[in-house]
Amino acid sequence: MDELLDLKATDWSTEGCTIEAALKIVGDRQTFLILREILTGKRRFSEILDRTGLSRQVLSNRLAKMLEQGLVRRHTYQAPGSRPRDEYRLTEKGFDLLPVVLALLAWGNRYECGPDGPSVKYVHRDCGAEVHLVARCDAGHDVTEPRDALPRPGPGAKPLVKRTTSAAR
Amino acid sequence: MDELLDLKATDWSTEGCTIEAALKIVGDRQTFLILREILTGKRRFSEILDRTGLSRQVLSNRLAKMLEQGLVRRHTYQAPGSRPRDEYRLTEKGFDLLPVVLALLAWGNRYECGPDGPSVKYVHRDCGAEVHLVARCDAGHDVTEPRDALPRPGPGAKPLVKRTTSAAR
Repeated sequence: MDELLDLKATDWSTEGCTIEAALKIVGDRQTFLILREILTGKRRFSEILDRTGLSRQVLSNRLAKMLEQGLVRRHTYQAPGSRPRDEYRLTEKGFDLLPVVLALLAWGNRYECGPDGPSVKYVHRDCGAEVHLVARCDAGHDVTEPRDALPRPGPGAKPLVKRTTSAAR
Repeated sequence: MDELLDLKATDWSTEGCTIEAALKIVGDRQTFLILREILTGKRRFSEILDRTGLSRQVLSNRLAKMLEQGLVRRHTYQAPGSRPRDEYRLTEKGFDLLPVVLALLAWGNRYECGPDGPSVKYVHRDCGAEVHLVARCDAGHDVTEPRDALPRPGPGAKPLVKRTTSAAR
């Protein structure tokens, strides 16, 4: 057993927290609605606008941020006889957010689902069976109970330094 | 192979989308910072305040919403010789957000990690090995490529009805 298991869960700082770093980029509802659309093949501004219900301004700002952060790239295409159009395609960095979307979907299905069931599911391209996330440890065990996954300091953990504010405790 | 695979990815409405329903409850950065803290054992208002950097007002509002949504419950305890204190504990509904946190952590580790490595990891309580999310289909295949998970209409999918706005296409 890893000796780090002996450390208290609170012995390290939030400095360098990669959950927080991820949230700085994707920690808003709008970005995930846009991701949902692009994942389902809706790649044009007008399509995303219509299906997310976001305002033009909000959608434009979010897409600009997603371009800047490298989650999407702009691709111009031209159908025969039409004017050129832009569409937004996911980069690998954007596609790698799929597990977050799947995790939100699973939670929504469990707790916020209407009587008809979920409107979307993800299936395996090769066999058509539904795809779910499972938590598994590097020793090969499935971790089915959230309480069986314990947070521990990672390689970049910094010691906890008390702040001098009155809120420090 | 499932016959639904023949449907176009865009043939259904966003009505009843459980991703969107989940985002209405947890679609903000602050909620996940609070979750991160409670998951790591920081359960008191003052502790969470200090470690998240949120303002008292924002933290108070978010916790009230999390209580209302049943993600946390308030627990009053009293250490010998001290005044009673409230702490916030995760309900099962709150604990079930762990996969979203793990997915954000994995993405942050891959794309937003500093040179020292991540500050936190999750380990299996039983064996101490690190816990990761994997996507697996119901036929037992690991789905390692995001592009191999395809969105398809679920049981509650509604036909797409064109809106009458000019943005409908």
